[in-house]
Amino acid sequence: MKAPPSQLRRIVADNVRRLRVALTLSQEGLAAEAGLHRTYVGAIERAERNLSLDNIERLAQALKVTPAELLTETH
Amino acid sequence: MKAPPSQLRRIVADNVRRLRVALTLSQEGLAAEAGLHRTYVGAIERAERNLSLDNIERLAQALKVTPAELLTETH
Repeated sequence: MKAPPSQLRRIVADNVRRLRVALTLSQEGLAAEAGLHRTYVGAIERAERNLSLDNIERLAQALKVTPAELLTETH
Repeated sequence: MKAPPSQLRRIVADNVRRLRVALTLSQEGLAAEAGLHRTYVGAIERAERNLSLDNIERLAQALKVTPAELLTETH
């Protein structure tokens, strides 16, 4: 097995934070909206968690974007 | 917690199978390319597994698409 690549976690982390702030949601507010724990949202934004498809789908719905947008690097 | 939504797993499952076949790779060949187990690739294509970001990144590289493309519904 290769070592886990980390670039995608960083892209998702940055997108979650950017979109959350744009919606003027706190981490707690986003967590409630997505049905996740507040500390889990914090860990996602620090790229510490290896987020799964089901939670990507939940977060995308709460942030009003498509799952694909959450994985797309913005410049 | 909400029940896990399943639409995204199905989209990813369909994309993995379509792209793998287009590259004339077997499940075993794709597994080797992505550093995953053959039975795990089968389970992904049956939408049984809640794939994580690190493995999405591995699969996308092996299938020569972006992670976002793997999550995008095709018609």
